[in-house]
Amino acid sequence: MDRISIIGMGLIGGSIGLALNRANRGTLEILGFDVDLKAAKKAKDLGAISKAASSLNEAVSNANMVIIATPILAIRESLEAMAGIVSPGCVVTDTGSTKEAIMTWADEYLPEEVSFVGGHPIAGKDESGVQAANPDLFRDSRYVVIPGKSAKKEAVDAVLNLVKLLGARNFFMDAFEHDSYVAAISHLPIIMSSALINAVSKSPSWHELSKLASTGFRDITRLASGSPVMSLDICLTNRDGLLYWIDEAIEELRSYKGQIAEATTEQVDDEAIDRLGNNFANSWGQRKKWLTRYESGQDDEPNDKHKIPSGSDLLGEMLMGNALRDRYKKLSSLFERQQEDPNRRRMRRS
Amino acid sequence: MDRISIIGMGLIGGSIGLALNRANRGTLEILGFDVDLKAAKKAKDLGAISKAASSLNEAVSNANMVIIATPILAIRESLEAMAGIVSPGCVVTDTGSTKEAIMTWADEYLPEEVSFVGGHPIAGKDESGVQAANPDLFRDSRYVVIPGKSAKKEAVDAVLNLVKLLGARNFFMDAFEHDSYVAAISHLPIIMSSALINAVSKSPSWHELSKLASTGFRDITRLASGSPVMSLDICLTNRDGLLYWIDEAIEELRSYKGQIAEATTEQVDDEAIDRLGNNFANSWGQRKKWLTRYESGQDDEPNDKHKIPSGSDLLGEMLMGNALRDRYKKLSSLFERQQEDPNRRRMRRS
Repeated sequence: MDRISIIGMGLIGGSIGLALNRANRGTLEILGFDVDLKAAKKAKDLGAISKAASSLNEAVSNANMVIIATPILAIRESLEAMAGIVSPGCVVTDTGSTKEAIMTWADEYLPEEVSFVGGHPIAGKDESGVQAANPDLFRDSRYVVIPGKSAKKEAVDAVLNLVKLLGARNFFMDAFEHDSYVAAISHLPIIMSSALINAVSKSPSWHELSKLASTGFRDITRLASGSPVMSLDICLTNRDGLLYWIDEAIEELRSYKGQIAEATTEQVDDEAIDRLGNNFANSWGQRKKWLTRYESGQDDEPNDKHKIPSGSDLLGEMLMGNALRDRYKKLSSLFERQQEDPNRRRMRRS
Repeated sequence: MDRISIIGMGLIGGSIGLALNRANRGTLEILGFDVDLKAAKKAKDLGAISKAASSLNEAVSNANMVIIATPILAIRESLEAMAGIVSPGCVVTDTGSTKEAIMTWADEYLPEEVSFVGGHPIAGKDESGVQAANPDLFRDSRYVVIPGKSAKKEAVDAVLNLVKLLGARNFFMDAFEHDSYVAAISHLPIIMSSALINAVSKSPSWHELSKLASTGFRDITRLASGSPVMSLDICLTNRDGLLYWIDEAIEELRSYKGQIAEATTEQVDDEAIDRLGNNFANSWGQRKKWLTRYESGQDDEPNDKHKIPSGSDLLGEMLMGNALRDRYKKLSSLFERQQEDPNRRRMRRS
């Protein structure tokens, strides 16, 4: 009987286990291990594993495949700890959300005759823990696959079979490229989400003002509910990419700030209002383009195949034929009046 | 027969119309007007209004209540245009997402014998336009109510009845307070969402890296899909609050940046790692507290009634008894090795 062992019984490890178990025709033993033995027991109760291993040693020895689904730095610990136990010919893979450091650790710790194939399923949900596991968590999502230096072809095929079994789409990438891309698309958003929560919850009026928070606030802060340990590990292993992208985000916020200030000074400046409006139209249009590609599942096509109009075309559409400038011509008197009102000068520190 | 007229046949105006129509026992005529006559026709086809008015004049004259559900600056135009048409005793209300400017315009344009009661339903969705309208859009959400200076008690009661009919919960506030609160909880998130899209979509690798974007990216950028006209109008009428809160967000991002840089320098600095971990734990805990209150619908209770542990208590829980410091003690050798690797020094400009 083949043995697959999953290290780390959280959302990801549990979901992989459920999918494996569902496809199992009795030829597979699925072992699970977690430093929190209760999590492994829970995974057993939920049907995500056939047996809860009581030690890493028990889980890893005689396994044909080991899937490490722990936080990133615990992957390093697992690789180091399993080095002397893992059987020759075993396929080791992981699910960590940064890849360069992990590929280096695998190369360093694992024996030559063990094949390491890095993996990153691009899926997640609001909740964490094995109780939130779902065998369809990965369906139709991307699954990044990065073969290690000494990975055999059969080992790569085994991981591709796993990806297929999960209903995901494999995506070969280089580890460096992967980390620089997820810094922008996945790790910067975690920082922005957390920064937003921190900024507003520091306000003395937070309890009052949070009563006005609704679905928009809930969605933009969702990533701040990811495990703090996972976020910390991401920062510790994707430093340069993150620092670069945080700077880019600050630059964009500064740009919005400057444009808002310019568009609302004493004199109405049509061009300044146009610039601000076009900035919103650009982000609106870029998101529409991306979302169309994402939802169609056709994101392998070149961008221009989709014939989606540009941001400013879309803005034109939205204004139903009226140019922004004309629309705001009437504003002069409004802003002059507002400037005369001393209440407008109060700082809104809430 | 009573006549209620809705100006602006978008998501909000259409949803109010559908709810009114559902509750209508044949005693109510619901007129709808939009500068885009096709939108009004669509609203009629969807059952959101009993009749599409062909002009603002037709919609407003002889109406007992006028609900203005247009973008903010168009509310000003509507108030100005209806001043000479609206019947004495009519109740005028709006749904704009900033309130100070609108209250001033109503006071300035409307005749004394017309009661203005400002409103702001705290609800929305990913889509816009009347085709996305839903009579239950406002169910269980907050609905801010701000009586104008000369609003009669009966007018306020009429708007409270509308709020009740929509299934929403009324929330009396001062306009200045409202605007400063929504700057933090609603308008800053729009800017952050738009800034994120703009920052990453400028990258030469955007098309490639966007393939790794998934549900987390979709949710954090949702607000960038709001109407650019609405976002622009918000900036033009809530300038000071927004400028203040953008600064606060930049400050938080800078703080994360500093902490990430400190936690990953040549020497492992346990305290620096603790600080970064605690920062994530804080945002995690603050969101958990807020979400618990939000989902329970008990956000009128003082915060401490909920007995939710603090961020650092929660972090302790998450680490299952292991202090952060112990967890990262083993990192020294890791970071020393990484610093020796020249690849780590490459800038990740993707």
